[in-house]
Amino acid sequence: MKKILLMAAAAIVALVANGQQALGPASGIVSPEINPDNSVTFRYVNPKAIKVEVTGDFLPSVPIQIPGGGVWAAPSKAALKEGKDGVWTYTSEPLKGDFYSYTFVVDGQKVLDPNNVYLSRDIATFTNTFTLSTEAFDDGHYYMQNDVPHGTLTKVWYQSAKMDRRLTVYLPAGYEQNPKAKYPVLYLLHGSGGDENAWSELGRACQILDNLIAEGKAEKMIVVMPNGVVRNPSAPDAQENNMFQPTMTNSRDQDTKPMEDEFPVIKSFVEKNFRVKTGAANTAIAGLSMGGRHSFSISRRYPGTIGYVGMFSGAGNGPENEKELKALFAAKPTLYWIGVGSADGVQKTASALRDYCEEKGYPCEYHESDGGHIWKNWRAYLVIFAQKVFK
Amino acid sequence: MKKILLMAAAAIVALVANGQQALGPASGIVSPEINPDNSVTFRYVNPKAIKVEVTGDFLPSVPIQIPGGGVWAAPSKAALKEGKDGVWTYTSEPLKGDFYSYTFVVDGQKVLDPNNVYLSRDIATFTNTFTLSTEAFDDGHYYMQNDVPHGTLTKVWYQSAKMDRRLTVYLPAGYEQNPKAKYPVLYLLHGSGGDENAWSELGRACQILDNLIAEGKAEKMIVVMPNGVVRNPSAPDAQENNMFQPTMTNSRDQDTKPMEDEFPVIKSFVEKNFRVKTGAANTAIAGLSMGGRHSFSISRRYPGTIGYVGMFSGAGNGPENEKELKALFAAKPTLYWIGVGSADGVQKTASALRDYCEEKGYPCEYHESDGGHIWKNWRAYLVIFAQKVFK
Repeated sequence: MKKILLMAAAAIVALVANGQQALGPASGIVSPEINPDNSVTFRYVNPKAIKVEVTGDFLPSVPIQIPGGGVWAAPSKAALKEGKDGVWTYTSEPLKGDFYSYTFVVDGQKVLDPNNVYLSRDIATFTNTFTLSTEAFDDGHYYMQNDVPHGTLTKVWYQSAKMDRRLTVYLPAGYEQNPKAKYPVLYLLHGSGGDENAWSELGRACQILDNLIAEGKAEKMIVVMPNGVVRNPSAPDAQENNMFQPTMTNSRDQDTKPMEDEFPVIKSFVEKNFRVKTGAANTAIAGLSMGGRHSFSISRRYPGTIGYVGMFSGAGNGPENEKELKALFAAKPTLYWIGVGSADGVQKTASALRDYCEEKGYPCEYHESDGGHIWKNWRAYLVIFAQKVFK
Repeated sequence: MKKILLMAAAAIVALVANGQQALGPASGIVSPEINPDNSVTFRYVNPKAIKVEVTGDFLPSVPIQIPGGGVWAAPSKAALKEGKDGVWTYTSEPLKGDFYSYTFVVDGQKVLDPNNVYLSRDIATFTNTFTLSTEAFDDGHYYMQNDVPHGTLTKVWYQSAKMDRRLTVYLPAGYEQNPKAKYPVLYLLHGSGGDENAWSELGRACQILDNLIAEGKAEKMIVVMPNGVVRNPSAPDAQENNMFQPTMTNSRDQDTKPMEDEFPVIKSFVEKNFRVKTGAANTAIAGLSMGGRHSFSISRRYPGTIGYVGMFSGAGNGPENEKELKALFAAKPTLYWIGVGSADGVQKTASALRDYCEEKGYPCEYHESDGGHIWKNWRAYLVIFAQKVFK
């Protein structure tokens, strides 16, 4: 027996050294480090590198003209400085509270920070992320995992016409403990290149809802995040093509009709499988970019069933079907909300839709923020929109 | 109206070019590419690199002596060859069906494959992954997302003594459609450095269960994957320390007692919030490494309540409390299953436990596979174990 105990102890020591299957050793470096003044220090170890930079949305943007038209507000780069033992370092200016993305650029090649396990995927591009909050009620605060009751996140499959498809569903804290309670539903749609993981990961939807509900600023609600590309079953992690690499093309529907047709299928599944309050007063839809266009088209297609509509940087929302839009407003939706960045390529169509609504006497709220066609804006719009619904 | 339509079209073009917030352009390179003979081609673009290698568990292992004792079976490296335009290429031997991990090594630095969105985290290390199946019923087949009914994956929070903690729960396909059905429960525990995401991500637990159930090889069951480090609330993505970087130290409990005490709290929450069949005949526990030790300790602590026990490379399982072990076997568990690799540092304690059971006349199944303390084995053990329970 004593022998077995000694072997057990030896085995534990060996395991520690083994580090299970991790394919490389830890460096002992901390990166990123959020400093007391809310500046952030980035560190990277590479004695052989000639040039190490960091790029990310915490740095000022620089406009880049794209061949064929359009301007992309690309994050600028900042150079890290090499210290002893090949440790490169850069410290940012003090930052505002927000959820930030970055990568290193090592001799011209994008490299993820090997010391930061926080990653987010946008279409096919991974970036490291960090979240900071400079005061209790800034935007960063809403994006952080705080000591508040947390909702449940579920990935559930529903039967669509051609295949089973995956839905991401957020259930507010208390859902399980209150088996008779019913909740209103927000359908929250992603953009081109995205999928049913986009809002819960890059969009921080769970943190935003947890925090707004805990502070009494938003009603308890269920948030349903479908995959808006009807020919795709799911995000890559659950794709039957086990090597699916998303692109703007294979994860976008040019036409809104497939998603318009799919919406009642999703809604019916949700109403059958979760405890939801039904009717226009308890139903909201919002989306970013392509999802903004979907929200525009779906709300117009089914007048009188959706009380709250949010279009975040809605791509190509034009009132091309005036009769349906008239029917939508005849049913008096409680909120028709447009959010867009002043530097966004779709700012002109967004403000034109507002002008059209004003001309027709359709009640419409318009919110213009700084910046372009970026997640920073969409997270902020969700914070605003979620406080306006079901009240 | 026409003007608005034109602006809408222009906006869509701009968006395509914008690529939302993705911080870099796609390369147009396919990597990895699974060839018809099940060899795999890796490609990487870097005109400035001097040496590009790939390392991963599809390559033969090389033993590495660790200072202070222990041997680590590290994957070897293979060199990519530079072609025109700085495109480096390597094609593997034909591979057996399995779930594989790899990274590139560029001039000595580990770099993730920028053309593959499939990533898995092991403790604090990300690797790219790919899955292939060479025939219908090999192990790779079980790890793939196939065209079978899919279960639901839920991340739910339960109240623990000191904090709310997150659980990952798999519900078998049909759970929602059969609101009166009840299911047996497998508690599935991770190893040192892991968390409640480990089995559903690196462990392919959802795919394994979906596939085994669809083929009629496993019973429909609920799988509960808790966080086994009781002082941690959750994996990094839901940590209130929004910059938590897991290590072998901060994501391990040296002592099994905290998790032994936590188990009834988890079990009670699960039995209250999900439709479970209770009692030893409907309750299984299994875990890898530290989770194997937890399974050993928890089953011994609560004799008569758990009918099936699986210890996958159980770390340090020694029968140091013979009285409790006697009580466990007096209650006649249906299955007491040990799985370990022949090259695993814990093989000696695992086989010693089997010898002890044989000496005492305790029924015990022992399965020894090739290889060491690696996920490849743990996934394979889950495939075996899941077919043996609740029958």
